[in-house]
Amino acid sequence: LPYSIIQVFLLKFITLLTDFGLQDGYPGVMKGVIWGIAPEAQIADLTHFIHPHNVLEGALVLGRAAPYFPAGTIHTAVVDPGVGTQRRPIAAWLGNFYFVGPDNGLCSVLLERAQEWGEKVQIIHLDRPRYWLPEISSVFHGRDIFAPVAAHLANGVALAELGTPLNDPVYLHLPVPQPLDHGWQGEIINIDSFGNLSTNLERKHIPEPGKVNVLIAGEKINGLVRTFGDGQPGELVAIMDSSEHLSICLVNGNASQRLQSRVGDAVVVKF
Amino acid sequence: LPYSIIQVFLLKFITLLTDFGLQDGYPGVMKGVIWGIAPEAQIADLTHFIHPHNVLEGALVLGRAAPYFPAGTIHTAVVDPGVGTQRRPIAAWLGNFYFVGPDNGLCSVLLERAQEWGEKVQIIHLDRPRYWLPEISSVFHGRDIFAPVAAHLANGVALAELGTPLNDPVYLHLPVPQPLDHGWQGEIINIDSFGNLSTNLERKHIPEPGKVNVLIAGEKINGLVRTFGDGQPGELVAIMDSSEHLSICLVNGNASQRLQSRVGDAVVVKF
Amino acid sequence: LPYSIIQVFLLKFITLLTDFGLQDGYPGVMKGVIWGIAPEAQIADLTHFIHPHNVLEGALVLGRAAPYFPAGTIHTAVVDPGVGTQRRPIAAWLGNFYFVGPDNGLCSVLLERAQEWGEKVQIIHLDRPRYWLPEISSVFHGRDIFAPVAAHLANGVALAELGTPLNDPVYLHLPVPQPLDHGWQGEIINIDSFGNLSTNLERKHIPEPGKVNVLIAGEKINGLVRTFGDGQPGELVAIMDSSEHLSICLVNGNASQRLQSRVGDAVVVKF
Repeated sequence: LPYSIIQVFLLKFITLLTDFGLQDGYPGVMKGVIWGIAPEAQIADLTHFIHPHNVLEGALVLGRAAPYFPAGTIHTAVVDPGVGTQRRPIAAWLGNFYFVGPDNGLCSVLLERAQEWGEKVQIIHLDRPRYWLPEISSVFHGRDIFAPVAAHLANGVALAELGTPLNDPVYLHLPVPQPLDHGWQGEIINIDSFGNLSTNLERKHIPEPGKVNVLIAGEKINGLVRTFGDGQPGELVAIMDSSEHLSICLVNGNASQRLQSRVGDAVVVKF
Repeated sequence: LPYSIIQVFLLKFITLLTDFGLQDGYPGVMKGVIWGIAPEAQIADLTHFIHPHNVLEGALVLGRAAPYFPAGTIHTAVVDPGVGTQRRPIAAWLGNFYFVGPDNGLCSVLLERAQEWGEKVQIIHLDRPRYWLPEISSVFHGRDIFAPVAAHLANGVALAELGTPLNDPVYLHLPVPQPLDHGWQGEIINIDSFGNLSTNLERKHIPEPGKVNVLIAGEKINGLVRTFGDGQPGELVAIMDSSEHLSICLVNGNASQRLQSRVGDAVVVKF
Repeated sequence: LPYSIIQVFLLKFITLLTDFGLQDGYPGVMKGVIWGIAPEAQIADLTHFIHPHNVLEGALVLGRAAPYFPAGTIHTAVVDPGVGTQRRPIAAWLGNFYFVGPDNGLCSVLLERAQEWGEKVQIIHLDRPRYWLPEISSVFHGRDIFAPVAAHLANGVALAELGTPLNDPVYLHLPVPQPLDHGWQGEIINIDSFGNLSTNLERKHIPEPGKVNVLIAGEKINGLVRTFGDGQPGELVAIMDSSEHLSICLVNGNASQRLQSRVGDAVVVKF
């Protein structure tokens, strides 16, 4: 009993995802604000290296990471080129966890997934300044609005208490693979720090993994491998990555450098 | 009551600011040392990307971040080109929080602010090795002296117990704006990872934000905007930043790259 | 008594060392998985900037950092070019703390030190999927196997319970200094973010620190200094670094850039 009480009352998980980088101390400031309101919060950095203002990249990384956190985790995301304008600050319950951040599509991947799976979704326009810092700058809502709101959620304040219900959130248009004769045309949606090229092609686009051809940048890859060890060092391979997307990788190397690939480049699966 | 006891006894916040980078594991080692002495400490990284040996930059980032942490937070800062020399290790109470680090001006911004506001200041020369690690290297006092001292503070050891009072701390000479006919000449004091150019000019130097001209690198900016959204993408704007300093920014872009600006470059306000 | 109970039951320390970088959110995902199983775990990042697939570098950084953490800390390390192949996942007790990671030599420095000091060593092949995530990808065992295993250790699951004893771990061949007439030939084993060149030469190779000559890249350094302050700015000095290895440094500068040095380059001590 005491143990479960401690779990319920003391352990609240908050994540931070931003495009702030780690040079200037901004993510640290958000942690200070959170602990000032919710001293028991446990805070994890997802990443602060989203490319500046790249809301789509933020949405994809958040969509990949969020499901691995405990139920009830408060994901606080700030990629916010519209800070200080009319764009609305929001908080949301998305089936299994909270999102706190700007209403610019940053939660699109999580939101669409929750809706697709028929889970409960509740979105709130954050319009009650009593849950914010006393002074609000026009350039750092991560510190002044989103961190305090995340902390109040961690303290058990009800989502509906934080503002007004909202039914028209901004959606990002996520790139969708296009059907071809005997195949699909997808594209690169993320390049990780190893140079692996993650695409928007999923299992459903690849009926027979051993028999498809993958075409990228003038190269043809015959079939998918199950693991990097199934290829030779320096060989270009296609593989289902850790988020179950088709990924093009160079064994023990950097596919992005080898192919000079960029996000948005076409990747075709033929069968 | 139990909740407040837990807060008081279990939750102690320590921050780390260094120029160590994140490649070599040094900040992690400091966390290990802290937890070995104060297992209940909650530790936040402010930044480890202060440019090597740039004490002024460290002092400015610390000055901006520290006020947002809970009262009593222990700010541990190590930008320490004089490590192993006669420069003194210090700990200090600066009005509302602790500072632990080298006596080289790294706490100047916090110290001058506390003095300006008439807050209690107490500075201690750390000269009692019983509060350090058993063996002291001549190159890593962050691990051997500052982390253990921060941990003992978190455990409730009184500041005065850690060493001898000190009344002549090293001050950094912070650049001060110079008055002009109908204006002020300031300078760039920080460039953040977005390329925004923060200056030492504050509200008191800008009587009518809508009417001043801001001169930088041969460009003239007419008036301040209240938010990035008041400018056009690609437009150079002047704005009060999140630490209430005048900042020159490129809307949805990088002002530092566009203007080829460096810390120390002149910025003039004319009215 | 209550305090010690809290320490024993609530505070469990886990570190993460990887070559994932901080761009893609992978270390954050590992924290989510850990907290889902062991909500009371305290997690510190050692580094995520090991050069991709550089197992030796990972082993050296881990060997330097691990001893500074509290007894019982669970060091989780993932530099894993063989992920998804036949290489075994392991967990080990190495005298004073746990290691969790791939069986590719990543724990070699810790393992050899524990054996040299006659400490208890127990290595387990992780072959019980009930302690892993339900679904195992072939590319991200940090998330699917190592994070859950670390969390179960933090929860008090016995090491032996996690798999089958293993007696033939993979060892890395660490470079060993070679004796010369009146000296030793060592090599650079690590270059830190300040550009300091750490070597595999230790105190035992340097009988009289004030009288030896250190030869590197055509330069001759006369004697070791005790601290950076004993050299002039811009002077090349030799010094025992914070892990008690001979290190070549440029006072207030970057020795790696000045000497164009790389890991593996020869460093000679003559006496």
